[in-house]
Amino acid sequence: MKIVCIGSGNVATHLSIAFKAMGADILQVWSRDHRNAEILAALTKAKPIRKWDELDLSADCYIIAVKDDAIPEIAAQLTGVKGIVIHTSGATAMSVLTGAGSGYGVLYPLQTFSRTKAVDLTKVPLCIEGDTPATEDKISAIAHLLSHQVSVVNSEQRKILHLAAVFACNFSNHFYQISSELLAQHQLKFDLLRPLIMETAEKVQSASPADVQTGPAIREDQETMKNHLELLEGSPDLQQLYQLLSLRIKNSSH
Amino acid sequence: MKIVCIGSGNVATHLSIAFKAMGADILQVWSRDHRNAEILAALTKAKPIRKWDELDLSADCYIIAVKDDAIPEIAAQLTGVKGIVIHTSGATAMSVLTGAGSGYGVLYPLQTFSRTKAVDLTKVPLCIEGDTPATEDKISAIAHLLSHQVSVVNSEQRKILHLAAVFACNFSNHFYQISSELLAQHQLKFDLLRPLIMETAEKVQSASPADVQTGPAIREDQETMKNHLELLEGSPDLQQLYQLLSLRIKNSSH
Repeated sequence: MKIVCIGSGNVATHLSIAFKAMGADILQVWSRDHRNAEILAALTKAKPIRKWDELDLSADCYIIAVKDDAIPEIAAQLTGVKGIVIHTSGATAMSVLTGAGSGYGVLYPLQTFSRTKAVDLTKVPLCIEGDTPATEDKISAIAHLLSHQVSVVNSEQRKILHLAAVFACNFSNHFYQISSELLAQHQLKFDLLRPLIMETAEKVQSASPADVQTGPAIREDQETMKNHLELLEGSPDLQQLYQLLSLRIKNSSH
Repeated sequence: MKIVCIGSGNVATHLSIAFKAMGADILQVWSRDHRNAEILAALTKAKPIRKWDELDLSADCYIIAVKDDAIPEIAAQLTGVKGIVIHTSGATAMSVLTGAGSGYGVLYPLQTFSRTKAVDLTKVPLCIEGDTPATEDKISAIAHLLSHQVSVVNSEQRKILHLAAVFACNFSNHFYQISSELLAQHQLKFDLLRPLIMETAEKVQSASPADVQTGPAIREDQETMKNHLELLEGSPDLQQLYQLLSLRIKNSSH
């Protein structure tokens, strides 16, 4: 399996290193920022390239892991390649790749990647889509090199997954931040909340979130909610969030 | 250590079983619902009691783990006991116990408890407070029987902790629920999101939430946010939440 990696951010880095570890050859790395291309190329024993005329046309697979809005222009550079062309974006339709490679599709890893934290890709759900059944089979085989969790997901479903991930991951993390700031304002350490955060995530690994909801809103504990809103008096946006969430929790209880 | 347990809900159950496992004697269990008192008493080899005149006055410690608004009336029943009286509520001031026992205080376990899931109490932060330094020392000793994480936290700080826990736990869990509902509406399994939820919680076990924020809001990816708001067109309250959270994430980036 010969791969060219286009992009050098978190997703490009985690995928390339995992492919390399599974025995694939990373032929080349291209990045808008050539320094980052050099770093990722060094990690994966690939060649960093600057210009599209240096592109190796013989790879089996070209992986585009760049900012969403940069995908179309890169796809346009990949019309002449023999391999298949794959993007990794949750929010981008497969159709932006039309015409690229000998086939095209999507491999969307449903995970949050940080540069500094290793992720066990074998447990990460990979959501794939191909322009034809034959391409989809190829992308499936490639995805199975990395993960045990491979699902075929069409472009419409993938958009929903991406939106759901914003709530489950990005917005939850912001609530962690709000809680850490509340604690810091009162000389309390965030360490006090870390076990609660873990347990909250662990609970829904086997249960449905609706079945394990706790707190004053689900109990309809008006007194506590009133006290909480008073504590938030200096932060009208937090009060608004508190009220919106509490109302939704109450209304969605069963 | 002789303990009387007042209450039979999740907190009462987890604490009593843990105390029993550490060698304490659970003398009696009282609950508004006598059937539940009988169940917890059976689990801890205690005697279930119905009436306050059956109360054993010789216990070292009376633990009140009932609904917040029931604490004062129960405290009033415990003016004649020799031991110390402790409530377990995050949202209730220690002062509601004034006059109870030979001393009084708080032991607030900062964790979310479900009836069906065991929790390793040794890792749960226990936030304690006592009416005098001597009582606080006794409560600290009791708390250390259960957990390695014991912190002295005053009533004002405990209110903030409880509020922060609502954001970090209750509200995050509701976002898990929103994401699971979005997926179900599009024939997608919640399993696809479970690893992401775990990773999001794991990341902040060592990092600060502000340092690991990801997603379209922190990237200021207007196109994706616009698409997400369109996908939420049938749910004005989710659109409002999406906009509020995205604005806060953008404004609190650094």
